[in-house]
This record gives sequence, structure tokens and C-alpha cells, in this order.
Amino acid sequence: MDNTYHPLAPDWQVQQWFNTPAPLTLPSLRGKVIVLESFQMLCPGCVSHGLPQAIRVHAAFPREQVAVIGLHTVFEHPDVMTPAALQAFLHEYRIPFPVGVDQPAPRGPIPMTMRAYAMQGTPTLTLIDRQGRVRQQHFGQISDLVLGAQLGALLNEAPVAAGEASPFAGCTDDGCATPEPAGAAR
Amino acid sequence: MDNTYHPLAPDWQVQQWFNTPAPLTLPSLRGKVIVLESFQMLCPGCVSHGLPQAIRVHAAFPREQVAVIGLHTVFEHPDVMTPAALQAFLHEYRIPFPVGVDQPAPRGPIPMTMRAYAMQGTPTLTLIDRQGRVRQQHFGQISDLVLGAQLGALLNEAPVAAGEASPFAGCTDDGCATPEPAGAAR
Amino acid sequence: MDNTYHPLAPDWQVQQWFNTPAPLTLPSLRGKVIVLESFQMLCPGCVSHGLPQAIRVHAAFPREQVAVIGLHTVFEHPDVMTPAALQAFLHEYRIPFPVGVDQPAPRGPIPMTMRAYAMQGTPTLTLIDRQGRVRQQHFGQISDLVLGAQLGALLNEAPVAAGEASPFAGCTDDGCATPEPAGAAR
Amino acid sequence: MDNTYHPLAPDWQVQQWFNTPAPLTLPSLRGKVIVLESFQMLCPGCVSHGLPQAIRVHAAFPREQVAVIGLHTVFEHPDVMTPAALQAFLHEYRIPFPVGVDQPAPRGPIPMTMRAYAMQGTPTLTLIDRQGRVRQQHFGQISDLVLGAQLGALLNEAPVAAGEASPFAGCTDDGCATPEPAGAAR
Repeated sequence: MDNTYHPLAPDWQVQQWFNTPAPLTLPSLRGKVIVLESFQMLCPGCVSHGLPQAIRVHAAFPREQVAVIGLHTVFEHPDVMTPAALQAFLHEYRIPFPVGVDQPAPRGPIPMTMRAYAMQGTPTLTLIDRQGRVRQQHFGQISDLVLGAQLGALLNEAPVAAGEASPFAGCTDDGCATPEPAGAAR
Repeated sequence: MDNTYHPLAPDWQVQQWFNTPAPLTLPSLRGKVIVLESFQMLCPGCVSHGLPQAIRVHAAFPREQVAVIGLHTVFEHPDVMTPAALQAFLHEYRIPFPVGVDQPAPRGPIPMTMRAYAMQGTPTLTLIDRQGRVRQQHFGQISDLVLGAQLGALLNEAPVAAGEASPFAGCTDDGCATPEPAGAAR
Repeated sequence: MDNTYHPLAPDWQVQQWFNTPAPLTLPSLRGKVIVLESFQMLCPGCVSHGLPQAIRVHAAFPREQVAVIGLHTVFEHPDVMTPAALQAFLHEYRIPFPVGVDQPAPRGPIPMTMRAYAMQGTPTLTLIDRQGRVRQQHFGQISDLVLGAQLGALLNEAPVAAGEASPFAGCTDDGCATPEPAGAAR
Repeated sequence: MDNTYHPLAPDWQVQQWFNTPAPLTLPSLRGKVIVLESFQMLCPGCVSHGLPQAIRVHAAFPREQVAVIGLHTVFEHPDVMTPAALQAFLHEYRIPFPVGVDQPAPRGPIPMTMRAYAMQGTPTLTLIDRQGRVRQQHFGQISDLVLGAQLGALLNEAPVAAGEASPFAGCTDDGCATPEPAGAAR
């Protein structure tokens, strides 16, 4: 069990979802380890490395344990990497997992979720633990061996069972602390 | 010298060119072996196999001997595989050779050049010899070894043998020969 | 912490060691996760898959956490896969981790350690946890992603700290159990 | 037809043959393009690159046109890379083409054929044309595309052009010509 403080993952701001009957949210996935694959459909490193690795993760781990989610974080060529183009891409490349379109920002090319996670580019792989906390974020390539080890460690952590004290919460003789810093109220 | 009858390659019908200062035509490339790589930017086999192979050919052979030309033969998702989207794709994937956009047909999804060459899909690799004749056409994957052997054979053929009438012909003191046997009128 | 009962790894019976100043034993590695790569130098799957994967593991994880050990388990062509041939092989292939030569059995082609671990062939990858227990054994290929996940899980388990009760030991009101079944005394 | 002067390939000096019912000689293969793959069984570049490429060539071209021949040119670790070890290696790696063991030299580590061809190491790929002349020799890696092109060019050459004096020559009504310029006497 990792008791270090890790920040909660920011909410996803998604304009449109594909490959899922209903929008996905972090709270609805609580208890699973989340592999968030942020990509652009015309980014060569995403197509040759990031997305194939995400597909391998999706195939290797049980859905009840690991949720693989794509996020189309367009910050280049927005006129051609539209949701309609993404839909054709997802179909042609047979992407099997849910993919959200990151909400464009009112100003500037970086969309909202990409900004909230402070991603440096695409592909970016973010690992979110069973408690909804960001534990790893990689820009560029990461080997299957290292990614597997990080997933294995996170999967080996107990989720917080219902009715159980959070590892952050903690009551002592002095009182009870909030499970999260008050400023992180969501 | 291969004296078997091979049909002349049909003219290219191109809507727009990229990566070249001027439109390219078959007659302007006469004397070179042409590798015509027909693809769609959202076709996975084109992105993972066809285009990388075309880039390897472009790098391995001298430009004076072998001309590698891309042809964007869109027959699916024409609304998103637009010339503007292709331009972004060529930039992101650093495609180094000229690429033409095949002219859409008045009716039906198959564009004009793709139709004239009777291509079955993408990727398709067409080999055109020094005399402008189609010598090989492959739909799908072809190994580097076999493609190399076909290129090596075509490169080893004289453009037009000395003292021999060119099949494209010409006029001598005796008169003007048809460039092709009369029965091959097109 | 995995409290399921897992058998202790059998001792290694090694005729000769390479790439290590002193023989290695399981007790001397206690506290580390051990990746035991059993191979034959003329086994194609070992050379193309098993050993390169072991080298990647050796490079990816800290030596204090993960010990990669090769075991030359010759059960075919013993006349040519001699320790002298192995030494040349290890040199040419630049194998960076310690390798032991499994002790030939008095009868039959299967050497002693291979037999004790009930391996089915080569390559075989055995994962031994920080407490010296066999936790996984794979004959043939295993993906980096799955191997990484298994390593990540084992690395996330606490070793038994000095002066701490063993997870196997356990005293209840009824008495104190031995940390291992008595029959497993070593 | 390449009329440049190219030296005749030196005879092979082979101690023992595998995968062939009878010893092979250059004259017996005259008319075919020969791909001679020189290797050592414990040379990593031979096992990972040279031999797999030779196997691909063997599979891609008709046997009547291209003869793939292996040559075990041991210049390191001769005590362990014996003919018996080679035999086990050829069996385990399922090498499908004939392989000769290069004759050790009376003095020095470089065996006789390797010396006669002035090879620089292993793997070395030598291309011998239909007339028995060395046309290309590559030490290290060569791409399938470039090798294919060289093979394609050699295959496109006539064995001996009709009505032309063979370079191996022969006798006419006028007498008997030497097969090679006199200075090349061997």
C-alpha cells in the first residue's frame, strides 16, 4: 500500500465519446487501475507505439481490473483532426476501447484535459490508481516491461473497500483528518 | 531487355500535388523506373507497411534511376480524407516524395487513376519501367526482397536499346512508326 | 501481501558458474525478486526471445531489487553444449548476468535443477519472490507486459524485515506455527 | 549483360558438407545465381540477421535460378564450433540449405575459403553470377531491398548470350581460347 500523498486525477472534460454507450467519468471507474492514452490521430508516435501498446494492455488485463481509455488531445491541425475524422480513424484502426475527445479550450491550442494534466505532448500515458490518483505520467515511449511493472504494482494495491477508513483519512486521539486536503474539494 | 508486350501505364489524373514544385507526368519521368505507391491516409496497412517501404525505396535508390511517387486514392471516408487532411498527414509523417491526389470520379467512390489502373484497394504498389509500361502491380504487402528483385531487374533493362526502334517510337528517314502495335490503340 | 501458501524454490544444483565471482544460492539472494532464465545455447527460442527478455529485465530494474540469473539446462546435444561452448556463447552474446550450468543427472537427459523445478523445456522463466518462493513459471514465450506486471506485483510485496514476524509464522491463542511446514526444513 | 571484367569466384575448400547428398562445387552450380552466406554458429549477427535473410532468399526464389549455400567459416572458438556442434545447430535452427565447413588453414585462424575470398568477418554475403564470377561481397548487414535489387539484376543477365563467346570459353573452328585473360591463370 502506497501511503505517499498523490494528487487526485483532474476530471476529464470531454466533448464527445466514442466506443462507449455512456460518458465515462473518473468516479465511475473508481476501484480500477486506469490507463489513459492521450493521442492525436495524425501523430506518428501515437499510431506506431502509443495506441498499439494501449491495445496490448486492453487485451492483457481483465476489464474489471484495468480500464484503458483513449483521449484525443488535439493541439495541432484541429481543422482536419475533427471528431468525424477521429471516428473514421477509430473504425479503420479498430480501436477497441472508449475514446473521448478532449474539450477545446476557449483560447490557445491545448485542450482542457490536456492542460489540466499538464501533458507535454502526445502520446502521453497516464496511470491512475484504484483510488483515482495520478501515479505515473509518461510523455513519449515507455517499454512494455516498465509499464507492466507499474501496472502490476498498482494492481497489487488494495482498493479502498466500502465502509473502510480511507488511508488518507485517519482518526487519532487528536481528531479526524479529511481524506483529502480541503482545497481539493470536488 | 524484356520484349514481351506490356501495356503503357495510363496517365495520372491528379487533382492536386504535394512535395513537388510542378505537376508530374509519366512522360516527364520516362527513362526512370517508377514506384507508384497508392494509399489512403487512414488505411492502417498503408501507414504501417506501404508508405514505410516506399520511403525505404526512396532512400535506397538514386533519384535519377528510381522515382517514388505517392498517389492518394481515397475511396472511403472522403469527407475526412481531404487534401487539407492529407497535407497535415504528409507533414506529420515526413513523407519525402511527391504525392498526388487522385481525381474523384463523377460517379462512384473509386477515383479516376485508381480506376484506370484497375487497383483492388490500398496499399497498391505499381512498378512502371523505363519505357513507361506497367510491369508489376501488387495489392497488399510485398516483401522488400521480392520488390528489390523486381526493381533490380527493371533497372537492369536498357531504357531503349541502341539501334532499336523505340516502342514510343518515332520518326526516321523512312517515315513515322506508331509507338505501339496498332492493335493496342487506347 | 500474498499470504497464499507457495512452495519454497528448490535449491540450485550448479556444476559451474560464469559471470560471478562466487557461486550464487537462493538464501544469498533472499529479499530480492529473482528472475531465473533457464535456457540452452542452441535453442532458437531462447536466443531470439528468452535471453533478450532477460537482458531487458536486467537493464530495467535495479540490481538491489531484481536478480536475473541464467541457468544452462542442457537436455539435448550435451556433447556440443559443454561448459566450454557455453563460455564462448556467453562471451559472443555479451550476456551480462550470472549463469550457472545445471548439474547433469546420474541417469536421463534432464539435469538436476530442471528436474527439481519440473520444467517442461527451454526457455523457462521462473519468478521467485523476496521470500524465496516460486510464484510463477512460464515455459515458452511470455510478453513483456505480463512479465512486467508479475514483477511489479512481486516488487510491491514487503520482504520479511529482520525481527519481524514472518507472514507464515503466526501465533494465536492456540500456539505458534512454524513459518514453513516442518517437512520443508532446509 | 555485364561485360565488365569480374574475377571468377575461387573454388570452395570444404571439409564436410551438411544438408546435401553430394559435395557442391562452383562448376556444378554454373548458370544459377549463388548466394553464399558465410557465418559462424556463435556469431550473434549471423544468427539474428545473416542466416534469417539467407532463409528468406531460399524461400523467395526458385531453386533453378538461385542457389543459397551456407559456409561455416570458423575463425574464433574452433574448439567449440566443431562440425558436430554445427550439425546440432543446423538441426535446431532448421537451416534448409546446404552448408559446407570451411577447411581450416595449416596456419592461422582464418580458414581456407574465407581467406581466398578475402572476407573481413562474419556474416559475409557473397553474390556469384550465372557465369561463376564474384559480383558483390558484403560484410555485416545488407537490407533486403538492396540485396533483392542486386539479385534481380543478376537474374536478369543471360547466362551466356547467344552467339557470343562464353567467357569460360571454349573451342571453335579456329582453336581453343583460354577461358580467362592469360594473366588471370589460376
